[in-house]
Amino acid sequence: MVIRYPNGKLYAGDKKEVPKQATTPPSKGTKKADVSYSNRGKSLEDDLNETNMFYLQQKLANIHKKPVPIQIVKVDYPARSAAVIREAYFRTPSTTDYNGVYNGYYIDFEAKETDNKTSFPLKNIHPHQMEHMKSILHQRGIAFFIVRFSTLRRNFVVSYEIVARFYDAMDSGGRKSIPFTIFESEAIEIKEGYLPRLDYLKALDAIIERIRGL
Amino acid sequence: MVIRYPNGKLYAGDKKEVPKQATTPPSKGTKKADVSYSNRGKSLEDDLNETNMFYLQQKLANIHKKPVPIQIVKVDYPARSAAVIREAYFRTPSTTDYNGVYNGYYIDFEAKETDNKTSFPLKNIHPHQMEHMKSILHQRGIAFFIVRFSTLRRNFVVSYEIVARFYDAMDSGGRKSIPFTIFESEAIEIKEGYLPRLDYLKALDAIIERIRGL
Repeated sequence: MVIRYPNGKLYAGDKKEVPKQATTPPSKGTKKADVSYSNRGKSLEDDLNETNMFYLQQKLANIHKKPVPIQIVKVDYPARSAAVIREAYFRTPSTTDYNGVYNGYYIDFEAKETDNKTSFPLKNIHPHQMEHMKSILHQRGIAFFIVRFSTLRRNFVVSYEIVARFYDAMDSGGRKSIPFTIFESEAIEIKEGYLPRLDYLKALDAIIERIRGL
Repeated sequence: MVIRYPNGKLYAGDKKEVPKQATTPPSKGTKKADVSYSNRGKSLEDDLNETNMFYLQQKLANIHKKPVPIQIVKVDYPARSAAVIREAYFRTPSTTDYNGVYNGYYIDFEAKETDNKTSFPLKNIHPHQMEHMKSILHQRGIAFFIVRFSTLRRNFVVSYEIVARFYDAMDSGGRKSIPFTIFESEAIEIKEGYLPRLDYLKALDAIIERIRGL
């Protein structure tokens, strides 16, 4: 398993941890050409975790990535040591990866990365994630995606509504991806920085303003 | 490992799953006499999961229990089968167990169960959970505990502020538990029912009203 450090970034995570891509359940029917799991594991997720840690320390927001859901089958309890999980399986998450609270708003998003240069393939998004986000909107939470075009090295905050427009149109024969031009014209681009790595709160303000009419 | 079914309740969970107490990281320095982990695993958590499922289906709230955080060390990828985790360890959660959104409010809580009949032992709550909840309040979220006195079979929604009052007083020599009488006089009792099993949303309304002055 090759650990990639795109953008020359040093790996600052827990040294004892296995590469994060191993903790992501294998996605069915996803071609390597469309979605880079290695990039997703080592860059967007790491950038967001660092960003969220920064927000937490600066008391700007409290947003966390949820642990990967695991079905545990067998656990050993060695004497005088920590319990060891000896057999377990990845489960399909029933929600999105990230949630939390920002300035009184419930925040819920999914982070996705693609190698594709001209569009974002919608098969990267599971129907249950769209269902979950719809339910979040019903409860007046803020639901969105953070999408990284890895090859172009450009990042966008895109509201649930924009994704849903294309997602729902697939049923009536619509295209199976969102063109990059839509991201450029309708989503909010976020630039990579040093601290925080991926400052998405300003984009959130804009989305909240649009939704709530504040 | 003995699986207890308090209250004659049938176990309706996933049959393939191991008893949930096995998925709870062992807590240091907690005596069996004070905190019943078997009860906590098989009753309060199950009741809350069923309740949250009911709220989700009825579109009343979107609140989930977070997966138990696991540190994965070794994964096997057998040909033509699902990936198998062969070595992993329980990690200490950095947040609370439950969060979500209800009527525009960010909801964050921890569920705790005790066998004690006269008080709730505070060592059952980790300092990092109190820190987390404080940060949630700062972001104008709603933070609270759901506490079950298993032996008495009584359940309470108790706001972060009440717990913090006792928790912070420990440092200056205060008692190491919250008397049951405080729950009776200051917390909000919730009755067990059939559907939902533990209807805590009304108690939440009262807490929100108190905090926001609505």
